[in-house]
Amino acid sequence: MTRYQQLADILSQRIKEGLYIAGERLPSVRVLSDEHGVSISTVQQAYRQLEECQLIEARAKSGYFVRCSSNLPSLPAICSHAQRPVEISQWENTLAFLTRGDQENVIHLGVGSPDLSGPGLKILSRLLSRVSLHQSAEVLEYDNIYGSPVLREQIARLMLDSGNHQSAENIIITSGCHGALAVALGSVCQPGDIVAVDSPCFHGAMQTLKGMGMKVIEIPTDPISGISLEALEMALDQWPIKAVQLTPTCNNPLGYNMPDERKKALLTLAQRYDIAIIEDDVYGALAYQYPRPPTIASFDDDGRVLLCSSFSKTVAPGLRIGWIAPGRYLEKALHMKYISAGRVATLPQLAMAEFIKQGHYMQHLRRMRRQYQRNRDIMTGWVMKYFPPNTCLSRPEGSFMLWVELPHGFDSLRLNRCLLPLGVQVAAGSISSASGKYRNCLRLSYSKPMTAEIERAVQKVGKVIYELLAESEPKVTLVADEPHL
Amino acid sequence: MTRYQQLADILSQRIKEGLYIAGERLPSVRVLSDEHGVSISTVQQAYRQLEECQLIEARAKSGYFVRCSSNLPSLPAICSHAQRPVEISQWENTLAFLTRGDQENVIHLGVGSPDLSGPGLKILSRLLSRVSLHQSAEVLEYDNIYGSPVLREQIARLMLDSGNHQSAENIIITSGCHGALAVALGSVCQPGDIVAVDSPCFHGAMQTLKGMGMKVIEIPTDPISGISLEALEMALDQWPIKAVQLTPTCNNPLGYNMPDERKKALLTLAQRYDIAIIEDDVYGALAYQYPRPPTIASFDDDGRVLLCSSFSKTVAPGLRIGWIAPGRYLEKALHMKYISAGRVATLPQLAMAEFIKQGHYMQHLRRMRRQYQRNRDIMTGWVMKYFPPNTCLSRPEGSFMLWVELPHGFDSLRLNRCLLPLGVQVAAGSISSASGKYRNCLRLSYSKPMTAEIERAVQKVGKVIYELLAESEPKVTLVADEPHL
Ligand SMILES: Cc1ncc(COP(=O)(O)O)c(C=O)c1O
Ligand SMILES: Cc1ncc(COP(=O)(O)O)c(C=O)c1O
Repeated sequence: MTRYQQLADILSQRIKEGLYIAGERLPSVRVLSDEHGVSISTVQQAYRQLEECQLIEARAKSGYFVRCSSNLPSLPAICSHAQRPVEISQWENTLAFLTRGDQENVIHLGVGSPDLSGPGLKILSRLLSRVSLHQSAEVLEYDNIYGSPVLREQIARLMLDSGNHQSAENIIITSGCHGALAVALGSVCQPGDIVAVDSPCFHGAMQTLKGMGMKVIEIPTDPISGISLEALEMALDQWPIKAVQLTPTCNNPLGYNMPDERKKALLTLAQRYDIAIIEDDVYGALAYQYPRPPTIASFDDDGRVLLCSSFSKTVAPGLRIGWIAPGRYLEKALHMKYISAGRVATLPQLAMAEFIKQGHYMQHLRRMRRQYQRNRDIMTGWVMKYFPPNTCLSRPEGSFMLWVELPHGFDSLRLNRCLLPLGVQVAAGSISSASGKYRNCLRLSYSKPMTAEIERAVQKVGKVIYELLAESEPKVTLVADEPHL
Repeated sequence: MTRYQQLADILSQRIKEGLYIAGERLPSVRVLSDEHGVSISTVQQAYRQLEECQLIEARAKSGYFVRCSSNLPSLPAICSHAQRPVEISQWENTLAFLTRGDQENVIHLGVGSPDLSGPGLKILSRLLSRVSLHQSAEVLEYDNIYGSPVLREQIARLMLDSGNHQSAENIIITSGCHGALAVALGSVCQPGDIVAVDSPCFHGAMQTLKGMGMKVIEIPTDPISGISLEALEMALDQWPIKAVQLTPTCNNPLGYNMPDERKKALLTLAQRYDIAIIEDDVYGALAYQYPRPPTIASFDDDGRVLLCSSFSKTVAPGLRIGWIAPGRYLEKALHMKYISAGRVATLPQLAMAEFIKQGHYMQHLRRMRRQYQRNRDIMTGWVMKYFPPNTCLSRPEGSFMLWVELPHGFDSLRLNRCLLPLGVQVAAGSISSASGKYRNCLRLSYSKPMTAEIERAVQKVGKVIYELLAESEPKVTLVADEPHL
């Protein structure tokens, strides 16, 4: 981390803790330079960064001031109340989203892959190379059916951070968190069963539910505290729900951490109605707070939580290493893993085990958490700068996704069509719903270094949004060229 | 290949082609030594190898003679006629089989992994290492959702060898052939549907069918010509079968290559009844004959064959690279792949693409085919030497599996229990059936170099078989300590 970033972090911390309050004048550049023993230009750079993040503002001839927190944009609305279980309608838009990420010459602001440019990944590449040569017999042979024992040991150790005391024997390696989610659903549900989900919901989980022929009931979800337990309870009273599937920590796409008490209350509810909980913790280790929030699984005492995760967001998705701690469903989960993938590639597992063991994983995590938190502020600032003033925004407490809500009637699928010739894409909100909700929303990722190129891309998105909104001004109704679900 | 092996190959070829006929005296050691320009001891070694394979016999003072082909053991019986679709009963025995392969200090004669000691694999390890370092950005990032384009190009090229003209766009990379089979089944069937299978059948496919809640009807299968089309047609007349799933080339476990005409006839049948064919070609490139037999998919003109394969048997299973060419089911197959695995690990794909492109794959295949063919003869010889004389044996035309049938009432699960303290295991025949058939059969693999250690293990198996048979002599009925299905 450079000096100016360090200083910016300290100052933003003080602002968040209320040491400098809204509207207050900040110390002069010279004072700070003396206090921290850094150059004038370092302080200036730090102030410029805080300005970009909209934390402070410069007033001509008066210096820098803490911005009023009332400036924080409004939160997105909670989705309307769950009506009934539905079949998942769409795949085409999700497919378009997934394949556009593979296209060159497109800046895809929506894709959920982490920053891969840090020094930790250089070390990982070297480990991959070393393992290829020095453990070639293991690398080439069929992996253990549960997954590599050395890696499962390391994962069990890491899980202590989220309050989970799991032995390595109860962990199964899967092909990414996708693999884990499929195993989990296959272990507790049959086709036709009803699963409750947080809403908006990770689009991949939605597709898994679709592919397995399940119905979902979308539970309204608060952008700060998570899935509504009240709405969930009502749904449980009314429908024969088999499981609830959710991402309670560093939620994708809303970014909240569900408070511990609510996590416990959810577990109690699951016990009362005897349903399973499929807990997606793929971003959990990227919470900005330290120590990271506990998982629901860490409170579980009767094995009803199936914890799913992977190294795709914390380290690198190309490795395809995920895992599941399936509680009481261990044997069924093993069968599901075996039939869907056989085993998992050995080489990435052995290299990852070494990466963790040598301490690089923790160091990498610390760096990434700071980077993503900083990026959140920058991206929030850009969206506030370039998007219409009535835009609503999530306030992520971890990971690297921002959820953007535009006025009702706005069409993010149309937005993407307009953006394509400009070489920019976002994730349309509707892929996060079983029933085409959130078409007026979109998701932006801020994992990559926040370059001028990305700023220009965000600016383009803002410009097209203004244009589309201006167009639709006279007619209040929706664009009619596609069925609106 | 050493000189004596080359010579042995030439001689065994001549015997098979009938140039030397049964009972004929072979040229003297000196004559051969002159003819081939090799030493006397080389010829002697070659003759000794042919003796081990039971192709020739030494007669005191007279030299070497071609053995009478009537010495070839009888073929295993065709299973009794298909009764009705059944649910797959067992997983425990398959699980035991799979986990015992992971145990150290056990010589597992049943596991289906290839020989990994050849020079081709050293090259592959170096490629893995190089790709880790030089293509690290691609290695770490999410793979293309269909799979790596460079690898799919290479696979499309390889498929020409089996008569298949597929474009790379119609190939999807999966997590091994297991992944491909799961994708295939998920693409054409629903839970509760009936699938026809060859019998005995690959145990993994059986478990996939079980896990997906399908019923199977086991079609009698000839150990030389494959699945009975007559029995299949009767079943199709009687039941609403959705698909037939089979391994028609280098069948696991029987080793036959279904004749081309029968492959075509099967396709015609599938067209007539409008069912899909799931063709498992995982061993196809390991056929001993050159060029390799065509796939059923190569005759397919309406996209009803879903061809599944992987590099697990031809190269190395730890890579977990499989693929599916799903014909008309491309979009559904892509969805199934996405929901079960997300993507596939990038590094092994890039290294494999390079391995093929540089010509190492073809060279490796040629070597392996020869090795496995030689090993087949050696393993056949050992079984004839150490097992009871009424043992029936398959005559594999490719890959590295031998199917052994013992007298009715013999219990291969009990055999495995007796062998465990001796540090040896085989694959019990019953895991190849949905309904516990083939308990009197077992499968032996002969991929690894045929060392004295393996010979001793085979000898131990033979000894225990003799003991168990002697025990059961008085009572004709089955061992009663486990339910017999
Ligand atoms: C919430 C959530 N779960 C699971 C996944 C899938 O992770 P993986 O790439 O490990 O399959 C993602 C990735 O987009 C995600 O956002
Ligand atoms: C006939 C057959 N199909 C598929 C497989 C699975 O192959 P993979 O390891 O590529 O998943 C095997 C391996 O045992 C097999 O014998």
